Amino acid sequence: MKLEQIETPAALIDVARMQKNIARMQGRMNALGVAFRPHVKTTKCIDVVRAQIAAGARGITVSTLKEAEAFFAAGVDDILYAVSMVPSKLPRALALRRQGCDLKLVVDNPTAAAAIAGFGDQHGETFEVWIEVDTDGHRSGIQPEQQTLLDVGRILHENGVKVGGVMTHAGSSYELNTPEALAALAEQERAGCVRAAERLREAGIACPAVSVGSTPTALAARNLEGITEVRAGVYVLFDLVMHNVGVCTLDDIALSVLTTVIGHQEDKGWAILDAGWMALSRDRGTSRQSHDFGYGQPCLLNGTLLPGYVVSGANQEHGILAAAQADPHADAQSNDIAQRFPIGMKLRILPNHACATGAQFPEYHAVAPDGSSVAWQRFYGW
Amino acid sequence: MKLEQIETPAALIDVARMQKNIARMQGRMNALGVAFRPHVKTTKCIDVVRAQIAAGARGITVSTLKEAEAFFAAGVDDILYAVSMVPSKLPRALALRRQGCDLKLVVDNPTAAAAIAGFGDQHGETFEVWIEVDTDGHRSGIQPEQQTLLDVGRILHENGVKVGGVMTHAGSSYELNTPEALAALAEQERAGCVRAAERLREAGIACPAVSVGSTPTALAARNLEGITEVRAGVYVLFDLVMHNVGVCTLDDIALSVLTTVIGHQEDKGWAILDAGWMALSRDRGTSRQSHDFGYGQPCLLNGTLLPGYVVSGANQEHGILAAAQADPHADAQSNDIAQRFPIGMKLRILPNHACATGAQFPEYHAVAPDGSSVAWQRFYGW
Repeated sequence: MKLEQIETPAALIDVARMQKNIARMQGRMNALGVAFRPHVKTTKCIDVVRAQIAAGARGITVSTLKEAEAFFAAGVDDILYAVSMVPSKLPRALALRRQGCDLKLVVDNPTAAAAIAGFGDQHGETFEVWIEVDTDGHRSGIQPEQQTLLDVGRILHENGVKVGGVMTHAGSSYELNTPEALAALAEQERAGCVRAAERLREAGIACPAVSVGSTPTALAARNLEGITEVRAGVYVLFDLVMHNVGVCTLDDIALSVLTTVIGHQEDKGWAILDAGWMALSRDRGTSRQSHDFGYGQPCLLNGTLLPGYVVSGANQEHGILAAAQADPHADAQSNDIAQRFPIGMKLRILPNHACATGAQFPEYHAVAPDGSSVAWQRFYGW
Repeated sequence: MKLEQIETPAALIDVARMQKNIARMQGRMNALGVAFRPHVKTTKCIDVVRAQIAAGARGITVSTLKEAEAFFAAGVDDILYAVSMVPSKLPRALALRRQGCDLKLVVDNPTAAAAIAGFGDQHGETFEVWIEVDTDGHRSGIQPEQQTLLDVGRILHENGVKVGGVMTHAGSSYELNTPEALAALAEQERAGCVRAAERLREAGIACPAVSVGSTPTALAARNLEGITEVRAGVYVLFDLVMHNVGVCTLDDIALSVLTTVIGHQEDKGWAILDAGWMALSRDRGTSRQSHDFGYGQPCLLNGTLLPGYVVSGANQEHGILAAAQADPHADAQSNDIAQRFPIGMKLRILPNHACATGAQFPEYHAVAPDGSSVAWQRFYGW
């Protein structure tokens, strides 16, 4: 199908950009001498995951058991479920392991560790668990020096659970925007995770995997000594938040939302689009960053950026395209908004956050350099 | 299925509250002597729509052609597609009409009006079009006194298209929070839409339907003289934004997200939940209102509110439950966060925006007063 024929709104993946992003990350990981385990929550799409594996990824990271089930069914068997396990989800994890999936669980507290040990014992299953380490205080995990780390390690180790490793995610990297700050956080992430592994090993608990990562820290790390693998997700498509963090250019962003101009309010300088927040998502991640892109950055159908314009507002199925107020050329342009963006014109909107925007769509349209496209299914739910 | 057995995160509808909300709105419309055409974009769920129709709704409003197709397939044939039409979407509209669907289109500009007329002429189809009127300047539509209103009316009327009516949506009502301001906007919405109908009729163009509505204005209107029908959507479930607008109580909110406590950061006073923004949505609609509920208001499994707590942050599959900073009782409670909210505990989160939160889920669990539930499917996409 040609771009012009795709009904709007639609999610487009520029396949050449995606492949470039995959090659860039995998190349870095190869150079740093670590394995790479992409986080597939960004796309939930087997076609994308196959491209990541073809480039050299070893195993995947998932954020839901549904992702684990779907990608295992599609032939991926090395899967890290990177959200702390709770007892009520153990039956689904057991079912996956019984089918041959090498599913690794994550915990960061003694209660869940004991529950996994007890459930494994009850069902004769040796679960593999990685302990989540907190290296930047932004969310979950155990700090490397906490006694809890060894408590959890021992509960698992002494009760028939394999401690497969430690893992951390320095998600606060999304709040940074200089190479120096990112490199410093990458080193903090590395050092903290390695320290946690050392403490477990000193206590007699094997800890083979030492896993770190977020897109910004993965791209900023200069040394990954002691690390066995890196995880990252959004790098595969990138987005405006990552642009503001400083780890990609606007031309690297592989996801866009195809939309049609459906109306105008000429006195206000608005063109109305058929991409509202249902298509673009409610994610306003750039609102707290150096450059606020509203609900997204408009481009022409061929991908040419339209500087000076922004999606300034969104209702459920309506977006408002307007001049970016800070732009000195904007006022003049807004007077001819209806001429510049006529009814029926197609545009592409670069999203704030690729994970959130992709989630709004049942499928991507994977666009080749010649403008032809094929549908790539994605899924949602838990 | 009992509540305790539902895997988390999950979207719950309290059916008794939903039925009460439906009865309240339909009762008001009956008392005001107008038809009611619910906007089904909120739920995209045939079970909910059947309850609305059983209570007296006449026809439905949709925001996408996919909704029109799905609900027509389920037996609803009086459908208003309330987003301005563009030429590229006409083949799907034609297909629906050819199958017997009484689909009404909406336009607010001469270009689209001419395109519908031309397409109808080409295919021998008499489309029915309602003209969108702008009564509060918040989005699309033609202002009642603009010449464009008559231009569009004439293009349609003189080229074989039935002008079925005028419609408006005073969506700026979401920004108000007093009964007086809402009543004034409801009157502005009514008067503007009636005026547009009168101008068309004076020009010799029949305009049978005069359709207004948003949940706040529908509930605030005191007089609907000249109006034939009202539309509203989110009233069926309500949410925290509507609570802040002042048109429902927290006990009226029929949608909640079932979640499990999966961890803690005791030094920060955080309980970590398995409902992040993928479940709760990125909608932060209450951030601009009098009471900011963060990513949602926590409740116990039985629905009892937990005042003093809030979902203060969200990553993709992690939510952070913490004391609401403004609450004087909160600090003391946060010291025993792990005792109060142990691992595995189930909670319910009232959402900021029912339309956005529901859209994250493939199904609702419709919960009866005895705590049993059945699955109600919903759909997404375009």
